[in-house]
Amino acid sequence: MKFFLFLLLISFTCSKAQTPDSTTIRFIYNEALLKGKSHEDLRELCKNIGARLSGSAQAEMAVKWSEQKMLAYGFDKVTLQPIMVPHWERGTTEAGWFQVKDKINKVQLLALGGSVGTNGLISGDVIEFNSLDALKKSSPKEIKNKIVFINQKMDDAFIQTFKAYGSCYPIRGNGAVEASRLGAKAVIIRSLSLSHDDHPHTGLLSYNDSIPKIPAIAISTNDADELSISLKNNPVTFSFETDCRLYPDSPSFNVIGELKGTEHPDEIITIGGHLDSWDTGEGAHDDGAGVIHCLEAIRILKSLNIKPKHTIRVVFFMNEENGNAGGKSYAKIASEKKEKHIAALESDRGGLAPRGFVSDGNDNELKWLQSIAVHFKNYDLHVFEKGGGGVDIGPLKNYFSDIVLYSFVPDSQRYFDFHHSPSDVFENVNKRELELGAAAIASFIFLLDKK
Amino acid sequence: MKFFLFLLLISFTCSKAQTPDSTTIRFIYNEALLKGKSHEDLRELCKNIGARLSGSAQAEMAVKWSEQKMLAYGFDKVTLQPIMVPHWERGTTEAGWFQVKDKINKVQLLALGGSVGTNGLISGDVIEFNSLDALKKSSPKEIKNKIVFINQKMDDAFIQTFKAYGSCYPIRGNGAVEASRLGAKAVIIRSLSLSHDDHPHTGLLSYNDSIPKIPAIAISTNDADELSISLKNNPVTFSFETDCRLYPDSPSFNVIGELKGTEHPDEIITIGGHLDSWDTGEGAHDDGAGVIHCLEAIRILKSLNIKPKHTIRVVFFMNEENGNAGGKSYAKIASEKKEKHIAALESDRGGLAPRGFVSDGNDNELKWLQSIAVHFKNYDLHVFEKGGGGVDIGPLKNYFSDIVLYSFVPDSQRYFDFHHSPSDVFENVNKRELELGAAAIASFIFLLDKK
Repeated sequence: MKFFLFLLLISFTCSKAQTPDSTTIRFIYNEALLKGKSHEDLRELCKNIGARLSGSAQAEMAVKWSEQKMLAYGFDKVTLQPIMVPHWERGTTEAGWFQVKDKINKVQLLALGGSVGTNGLISGDVIEFNSLDALKKSSPKEIKNKIVFINQKMDDAFIQTFKAYGSCYPIRGNGAVEASRLGAKAVIIRSLSLSHDDHPHTGLLSYNDSIPKIPAIAISTNDADELSISLKNNPVTFSFETDCRLYPDSPSFNVIGELKGTEHPDEIITIGGHLDSWDTGEGAHDDGAGVIHCLEAIRILKSLNIKPKHTIRVVFFMNEENGNAGGKSYAKIASEKKEKHIAALESDRGGLAPRGFVSDGNDNELKWLQSIAVHFKNYDLHVFEKGGGGVDIGPLKNYFSDIVLYSFVPDSQRYFDFHHSPSDVFENVNKRELELGAAAIASFIFLLDKK
Repeated sequence: MKFFLFLLLISFTCSKAQTPDSTTIRFIYNEALLKGKSHEDLRELCKNIGARLSGSAQAEMAVKWSEQKMLAYGFDKVTLQPIMVPHWERGTTEAGWFQVKDKINKVQLLALGGSVGTNGLISGDVIEFNSLDALKKSSPKEIKNKIVFINQKMDDAFIQTFKAYGSCYPIRGNGAVEASRLGAKAVIIRSLSLSHDDHPHTGLLSYNDSIPKIPAIAISTNDADELSISLKNNPVTFSFETDCRLYPDSPSFNVIGELKGTEHPDEIITIGGHLDSWDTGEGAHDDGAGVIHCLEAIRILKSLNIKPKHTIRVVFFMNEENGNAGGKSYAKIASEKKEKHIAALESDRGGLAPRGFVSDGNDNELKWLQSIAVHFKNYDLHVFEKGGGGVDIGPLKNYFSDIVLYSFVPDSQRYFDFHHSPSDVFENVNKRELELGAAAIASFIFLLDKK
């Protein structure tokens, strides 16, 4: 009975705008924190399915799971949008060590995504560089037939860890090409992480078809330190084997669920994250948390009987990690169908304590963003400023010039401890931090829809 | 050479105020993040010493460690302030289970701090209450000779978890007295935690000398749920044994280190946390992080050659957890010595991502606090508002009516997952979050000193 009255109240609120927004936002947070499904949903995705790289059986299982979840929550329309995705597999053999004089040092390693395999054991003398630029400045004579080790540390001085990541990103993306261009037989990079531990962190590399494709691996930050110290005093040989390879593209899907708009059903607000993950860990923060944030946001709005004026579409994008086929296809198809996309929000920075939202909009849009900060003060959100949207929703900008892109911003300090590594598991996502993220996004969408 | 110039620059900055504060604050953050000692210092405190309850050998070891650490960092003056502290020990036997029909269910439990032991196995029928008020309203007839189970959940709806803790705190503090008053033979409380897990969380209880002292334990939140479900259908008997007892008070110390003021050496700003911890886990967040924050803040100021005008005194208070003898003595002795205390800051909310600072000062003080927010925007601090000081520095207010008390405010979401439990260990403190806390406090003290 109490619940029925409560629904009436919200319904009244939203249609007649007589209850303050702050009351509705409090209801949203209560639903997330007291009756939330996000933690249990993330557990299912991580524990019943686990890692789900594009093209894998697990990725397809995740598609089915997502479709059924959206149907079970009673979304107005659930569709699978067919796409073709790259299909790379790690294989089974992955091991390596380095030798200094008579001492063998095993290292924790992961092939970089997209790398060719070694085709048996590969060994070579190691030459170290502390940046991609330093490597580029060296000569083929120094590099030829060696194994290049790029030991660039993420800079601890950045307060926002994504900036530290951004400045190191080229060693992973372009290290193999630059090393191969100078004649290296393989490349090893220091894992992109701020923590000192034994987990290697994988991630996508690029090849250039005109330059030989050499095997590329990431080693843990602790192993990178150890290797670097060893290299100071003695020549070091490094040996490793990987068994990864690229298969022909596979069919897959974006999973799309809708809450139909009551006044402007043709005007679409997209919210989403990516369903695929790297093939190590469980893709809990990256980006299980993001898709669950958005799923839960819609579930909350539905459960409170909040009926948006615009159509809210949640998209679980496929293939963000190694190709972005999902994001590109979604935008292209939206344009071909002549849909009207007014805004999009992405959550792909982990399931950590919310800090706020950024927008790529113009000054007026920024003013609106700043105007809603007041609603979030009691919920500890304080970042309402200019910033990029994200990889998945970015392509929408190519087709819809007026669209405003938003990104959910959680605290970034712990994110790269887990990112693309075996430690990105459900246990490392805090229940309340995840729930608060879903509540923040649901509240944001509630306000954006009313704008 | 570079470093020497750097020192000169800072020294110049601080004495002539010609370099913007923002530059100095950036230097402070760089020192904490690039050359910080906080993580390694916390590791030593947690791993080489560990849990350190007042009166224990480990607490005395921690006193020695702290003294040597402050001396090694070259503080101007390091003193041990003698105090007497309660000495309670858990003993060795601690186990329990509940029985429903033929089924035995082992529970994870911890005696509450200060509890009497059971003197052998104690068993009884369980009666459950969901709050202290519900217990108080019951009759001696219902309670007599039973074991009272107070299963009050911390309220997930609070955004600030300390508020949820505050509202549950009485079940731990007063549960034993209220249950005993009605004739119970023992009391069990649901652990004060928002997480659902298998760690019990201890903490101090109070007894009343005119009411029989009954044994009191906390069980894990998972066990509390299990016990509650079992009670819905069947009578349940609960059996447990504890071996804890109170010994005569022991001598101990507050550890005090100073950075002498250049202009107003007699005007003291105290910063600190508590060195003692509960006897489970390693007291990593509570309050290893707090003392290390303050130690590191002073080390940073010294290493940058920032010479404060006022004397900055770091105090590692002893006995916050079960008596507050350290805080009370420090304030009393300060008054007796006719010292001049102008401000104090406490860090006792864990080593989590910084959010800001609160102050108990008047409107003018609050205005100053808000005026410094601008310096912290790029460092993700946003809480600059009214709030309490803390248990350790609170007694200063009794003697120095003009003193302004501040508290460092980190994010609160994960704090009660660890608080007073076996999981409050070094591994659960994130290096960057800890370092950012120390940098925030050092920057705050730098600004406060200039006020």
